[in-house]
Amino acid sequence: MEYAVRGELVLRAEDLAKKLKLRPPAAPALPFDHVTYCNIGNPQSVGQRPVTFVRQALAAAVCPALIGLTPAGPTQSPRVFPPDVELRVRQVLHASHGVGAYSESRGLEIVRRRVADAIQKRDAGIACDPENVFLTNGASDAVKAMLSLIVRGTGDGVMIPIPQYPLYSASMTSMRGVQVGYYLDEDEGWSLSMAELQGRLEEARGRGVDVRAIVIINPGNPTGQVLTRQNMEDVIRFCEREGLVILADEVYQQNVYVKHKPFISFKKVVTDLHSKVELASFHSVSKGVLGECGLRGGYMEVVNMNQDVIELIYKVLSVSLCSNIVGQLAVDLMMTPPKPGEPSYELYNAEVTEIFESLRRKAMALSEGLNTFEGVSCNPSEGAMYLFPRITIPEAAIFAARERGMACPDVLYCVELLEATGICVVPGSGFGQREGTYHFRTTFLPPEDQISDVIEKMRTFHSSFMKKYSSTFQS
Amino acid sequence: MEYAVRGELVLRAEDLAKKLKLRPPAAPALPFDHVTYCNIGNPQSVGQRPVTFVRQALAAAVCPALIGLTPAGPTQSPRVFPPDVELRVRQVLHASHGVGAYSESRGLEIVRRRVADAIQKRDAGIACDPENVFLTNGASDAVKAMLSLIVRGTGDGVMIPIPQYPLYSASMTSMRGVQVGYYLDEDEGWSLSMAELQGRLEEARGRGVDVRAIVIINPGNPTGQVLTRQNMEDVIRFCEREGLVILADEVYQQNVYVKHKPFISFKKVVTDLHSKVELASFHSVSKGVLGECGLRGGYMEVVNMNQDVIELIYKVLSVSLCSNIVGQLAVDLMMTPPKPGEPSYELYNAEVTEIFESLRRKAMALSEGLNTFEGVSCNPSEGAMYLFPRITIPEAAIFAARERGMACPDVLYCVELLEATGICVVPGSGFGQREGTYHFRTTFLPPEDQISDVIEKMRTFHSSFMKKYSSTFQS
Repeated sequence: MEYAVRGELVLRAEDLAKKLKLRPPAAPALPFDHVTYCNIGNPQSVGQRPVTFVRQALAAAVCPALIGLTPAGPTQSPRVFPPDVELRVRQVLHASHGVGAYSESRGLEIVRRRVADAIQKRDAGIACDPENVFLTNGASDAVKAMLSLIVRGTGDGVMIPIPQYPLYSASMTSMRGVQVGYYLDEDEGWSLSMAELQGRLEEARGRGVDVRAIVIINPGNPTGQVLTRQNMEDVIRFCEREGLVILADEVYQQNVYVKHKPFISFKKVVTDLHSKVELASFHSVSKGVLGECGLRGGYMEVVNMNQDVIELIYKVLSVSLCSNIVGQLAVDLMMTPPKPGEPSYELYNAEVTEIFESLRRKAMALSEGLNTFEGVSCNPSEGAMYLFPRITIPEAAIFAARERGMACPDVLYCVELLEATGICVVPGSGFGQREGTYHFRTTFLPPEDQISDVIEKMRTFHSSFMKKYSSTFQS
Repeated sequence: MEYAVRGELVLRAEDLAKKLKLRPPAAPALPFDHVTYCNIGNPQSVGQRPVTFVRQALAAAVCPALIGLTPAGPTQSPRVFPPDVELRVRQVLHASHGVGAYSESRGLEIVRRRVADAIQKRDAGIACDPENVFLTNGASDAVKAMLSLIVRGTGDGVMIPIPQYPLYSASMTSMRGVQVGYYLDEDEGWSLSMAELQGRLEEARGRGVDVRAIVIINPGNPTGQVLTRQNMEDVIRFCEREGLVILADEVYQQNVYVKHKPFISFKKVVTDLHSKVELASFHSVSKGVLGECGLRGGYMEVVNMNQDVIELIYKVLSVSLCSNIVGQLAVDLMMTPPKPGEPSYELYNAEVTEIFESLRRKAMALSEGLNTFEGVSCNPSEGAMYLFPRITIPEAAIFAARERGMACPDVLYCVELLEATGICVVPGSGFGQREGTYHFRTTFLPPEDQISDVIEKMRTFHSSFMKKYSSTFQS
């Protein structure tokens, strides 16, 4: 089991960061003065600031004695928390036992009702039953719970995209299920081909695998692609025909940067098609504009699942009693932000707009930059927080990586990038890629004023890497 | 897979609570006006108040803008947070990216260092390496991670006490491992007999089970017993001889109510014996005096485990990236409370002393009360938050339960108790018990002024239950 975004390269980066911090004056200097973490979608670790509204509401819920407090000041000061924050928190506290008590295993009822209302609004009025919503520690726990129900033994398989986010491969490995990989088409902007799905499914069934579900990541991770509605309809028909459950990783639903491909939820399309396909959709406060990774708040909505299955999910989640309540409240705050006219709205809107627009600009700048490197091509990021550029690795580098016992030549590329520039990215092999192609995944999360520096450092490194291992090339 | 403390009886109790709330004026009244939840160790859901120091520190960490704030007041007011709270929070924020960023998978280094120091102090100076400490969402996630490493396939077994906390049985079921039950001796105050351990181990090995670990819950859940040092030494020698890993559930280490049996950690005894036995010890902010169940903060310390195993644990935990940071901070606050002389100390000390003394008084009152019922016997609670009284069930009730398709007659007892009094307890069969004996588990967490009412309601119900199913008795 490997978890690339927390793998060896990251540990090496942390060592370098420690060295920079503790370096005795006499020690030889590193060729950089800080480590730039582009390995993981962890916005607040690289300078993104939390949204004021969210933190005010959570602080009030954690310490209700602060509600109603007025700070000292020369003139008549406003209260510490705006009245809409206080009202919301009072409502939650009234309908629960606060953040210090276990909630029911699905999560607090008041939060699930509010989340259900917000989902209904997102999906143009399609009904959402709070009993089908499960609040979890981030999306990861929900994904693991669903996979643990789907994989009953070593003969059960789940279709997983290549490239994919390692949560899926690592969970499947630990559950001893079969990963049935399907390739996304890099030449077509990482789109999903029905012929590929059908082919891989038949191949797996041919060798006796009981394929039971498919994971779709939309917007994509690490690819950043956004599915078209037509693509989604095709997938749903395919899953209906083949009896597959859809596991829709939709944690980047707020992170769509292109106007022509708005995010559409799988639930919306399933419902529009009157499909009876079973679906679980995952979302998280870690991504979006809040980037509240450390709170571990997430939810799963299940659609078209029968009562027996829902009760089984309940049982699996109840073994951990409930997810953390602060994270549950954060899910509510993400799903139902302040509305125009409410006291918190103006500041909230200014903060999230700035975060979103900055993400969009950084995504574009970085992909445009990468595309100017010789031997690098990068699909633009339509969504999510990542780019997955394809890199040329010269024969001599492939040989050198093999000599050094590395699993894949892109590891050599990433290690040398880290050691030369302090920029930490993740080798493409950690996510999966077509045989003979090489990539890395980078976030575009560093502060905006550092992005051009990141590009230039990457450019200089890339060209010297190519020179170092020059003469014979292989694409 | 069943999880009794969140099982059918609790769902029924929640239904009754809803009925009480929404009852139309014309509907027939229930024989009680509120549901008394004694089914789960969830102190803040039944009125225990959070400790001020903890909530102030967490609120400051969640919303650092509040640090340094002075409330308005007629005279010179003190700051919103005491200076020691502010200092602690500033230190953590300085050494981390705050509560909104993923920490490393083991948990924040600054918290692990502080927790390690506190463990060292608890164990009379025995060294604790922060790299052996893993911060998790409550103790449950750590337990599940360890079990998932120990159970490699359907042939692997773990020894689990009977009665036991259903986290263990449910996790083993979902991992498809073999539960090798060992009975605690009710007649000897729920103590642990070495002959019983040896016998059950040999029996299991005789039928081909690869027994790899033993779960010890100390103080006991649901039994409330505290192990003697002699008992612990015997267990360690047994595990050494038999090559078993010790999983020490020590989440009730602060909840010991008898002077003659102070809590001693397994690590302390293992170290004193110079034993090389592998050990994982679990602790949680949900219990103790804080009772912060909803924060999902916990830790695991591993002892005598080699680097390969530690790296494997790291990998398993890294699939969920990290535990929630607010819970991690709560672990630090639990392990290193304010010291005498610090500004927060006096209030902190008053609050936790009151909580602890009240728990002790309630434990004693409830067990003494239960022992006065005819046909009920109850070992006193030396620790934890539960009593596990043994009840007599008349033949006619056994028959009635069978007629109603109940798994065990104690379910009938608990259902009728709930319906007659509103008191929700958990049938002993949810934890395991000797064939032909019946029990229920009750917490002693309701507010102190309600305990005598709980006892009297239980007494009245018990005597009418016995009368209803009278004539032939079976003990």
